[in-house]
Amino acid sequence: MSEKKNAARLICPAPLPVRDRVVLGHGSGGKLSADLFASIFLPALRNPALAKLNDQAIITAAGARLAFTTDTFVVKPLLFPGGDIGSLAVHGTINDLAVGGACPLCLSAAFVIEEGLPLDLLRQLVNSLAAAAQAAGTAVVTGDTKVVERGSCDRLFINTSGIGVVADGVDLSCEYARPGDRILLNGFIGDHGIAVLGEREGLEFESAIQSDSAALHTLTAVLLAAASHQQTDATVPGPIRCMRDPTRGGLASALNEIAAAAGVGAQLEEAAIPVREAVRGACELLGLDPLYVANEGKLIAIVAPEAAAAVLQAMQSHPLARDARDIGCITAEHPGVVTLRTTLGTRRMVEMLSGDQLPRIC
Amino acid sequence: MSEKKNAARLICPAPLPVRDRVVLGHGSGGKLSADLFASIFLPALRNPALAKLNDQAIITAAGARLAFTTDTFVVKPLLFPGGDIGSLAVHGTINDLAVGGACPLCLSAAFVIEEGLPLDLLRQLVNSLAAAAQAAGTAVVTGDTKVVERGSCDRLFINTSGIGVVADGVDLSCEYARPGDRILLNGFIGDHGIAVLGEREGLEFESAIQSDSAALHTLTAVLLAAASHQQTDATVPGPIRCMRDPTRGGLASALNEIAAAAGVGAQLEEAAIPVREAVRGACELLGLDPLYVANEGKLIAIVAPEAAAAVLQAMQSHPLARDARDIGCITAEHPGVVTLRTTLGTRRMVEMLSGDQLPRIC
Repeated sequence: MSEKKNAARLICPAPLPVRDRVVLGHGSGGKLSADLFASIFLPALRNPALAKLNDQAIITAAGARLAFTTDTFVVKPLLFPGGDIGSLAVHGTINDLAVGGACPLCLSAAFVIEEGLPLDLLRQLVNSLAAAAQAAGTAVVTGDTKVVERGSCDRLFINTSGIGVVADGVDLSCEYARPGDRILLNGFIGDHGIAVLGEREGLEFESAIQSDSAALHTLTAVLLAAASHQQTDATVPGPIRCMRDPTRGGLASALNEIAAAAGVGAQLEEAAIPVREAVRGACELLGLDPLYVANEGKLIAIVAPEAAAAVLQAMQSHPLARDARDIGCITAEHPGVVTLRTTLGTRRMVEMLSGDQLPRIC
Repeated sequence: MSEKKNAARLICPAPLPVRDRVVLGHGSGGKLSADLFASIFLPALRNPALAKLNDQAIITAAGARLAFTTDTFVVKPLLFPGGDIGSLAVHGTINDLAVGGACPLCLSAAFVIEEGLPLDLLRQLVNSLAAAAQAAGTAVVTGDTKVVERGSCDRLFINTSGIGVVADGVDLSCEYARPGDRILLNGFIGDHGIAVLGEREGLEFESAIQSDSAALHTLTAVLLAAASHQQTDATVPGPIRCMRDPTRGGLASALNEIAAAAGVGAQLEEAAIPVREAVRGACELLGLDPLYVANEGKLIAIVAPEAAAAVLQAMQSHPLARDARDIGCITAEHPGVVTLRTTLGTRRMVEMLSGDQLPRIC
């Protein structure tokens, strides 16, 4: 039980919101993040692309329709079962392009390095980043390196930004979710967050848990292709309303964002949501809810009901979605609210993450 | 003299290169930065765009010619005379697009915030960033916010990436510099570095020194327009061979990079390089060479000799280049070497910055 105590000390309680200073929860991807965005970033930077609250902006540049996204990775530790900050920085940004319906074209990579970082470790992580980019068929075309004094950053932070090309006719956005739409998920949730936390805190689980970190652009292409056969009217949102990768804040926060953006409810079936036994056990030990744990190789797709079965079947043919499931539906009732029908048959609200149960997971 | 002693303690000596760990000099923009890039980043990420060593990559996306760049800003302190990290993060990335001949289209902004940062300060800096973007006619269309624990970063780091549109026929690259070309500079050097250093160390100079931080895209447009009248043959590099903003590592490092990339020499006239008296005095006090001090509103342009006078005249009509000068020429002798003819008539080599005389200036 010493493990439990140790983990509890480090994870809980979520820091209390302090009104005049930034707290860890402001970076959680949950409620405090949304508050910070709404109170500081959006009023200052207000523009239509940013206000859509998607994971990427869709812009038109010299006639080309492009997706543009950015993410800084501050994961701790730098290496974890199933990945490292280098590969994660590539997968995360590719996924933010992919869930916008874009084909990734190129990446930037900007490194903030703490003085004293071993050069061999830096080389290993840069090589991992490069290998992940190459495996995904993209390239890092521009970069930056800053070095700060010892104590001024925690070893290494990596920002990647990415540009993708959005095909004609592809137009996905959270606000397009409609009552009756099905919610599809490509597999087991919580692996990434628990793998990183286990490595950070030196916890040993009953069976090894690996991060699910992966580039999802070939999977999103499969979804779009499967759905295009179902589209009958090009003037309304296509059968794939939107896709989202549930990273920080987990599945719960991603669905809350969609529900809020579209003014709809979302109803999940607990029995349909795949969670590995080892992850479930670790969550119970640590007092975490898998619905809020970060993923880096998962996506949810909101799909028109008439297309959902075909899209799900197509997904299941892809190696990264063998365990894909239909986990619930979009409802007209309770706009902005996500509910879960538990395996016991009860129903509970699934609120947005408040505070930060797992800081520095991506 | 206590100021001098204090500053000397903080600035000198440059840290010795240590073979197996990252040192501050690896982020200087000078020789150690180039070594790190050549030994770790380029071998891993090798691709044609990155290998050109320009401040931005030129890519083709769905038929559009675009410039793409990234920069993380870790300047300390966050506010300094003439600017702050918010406006700097916009100007720096716009300038990296502009010197590639691109018209800035949109930006991303990614914040890494240390727990405990006052929300009012964050709001002020985000507002400054937004105002700088708006003043430059561009917008932040996508972003990210991470919060790390107290002690895991130094208050606030901001990454901005940018996309710009490159007009047909515009093709600038350091490798195009040719013997006989003139070197044009748009004004006084060293203001930014000395302003930041003065604020950081609490130094008082004989007269106030303000950062020159500014967006240079309207100035680069003036240069390109002036030069286009001089272009006679579209199949060879245009009269503007390349532009560069001499930030980290200063004028000396930027010219060394051009000389190395093009396999040419560069010959500067000390008497022609504008340095304010207050900056010169501060540099003497601190043991710094203005040629190595960072700028954030300066550019150098390498221009064909027959076009140089007209381009210089056009520059001087722009508010950010009233003090523009022709400061020297590109030579066939001493390829890869930059020399300076001093005001005393002697000649000395101007090497690339080695170590880091002013860390965290941008």
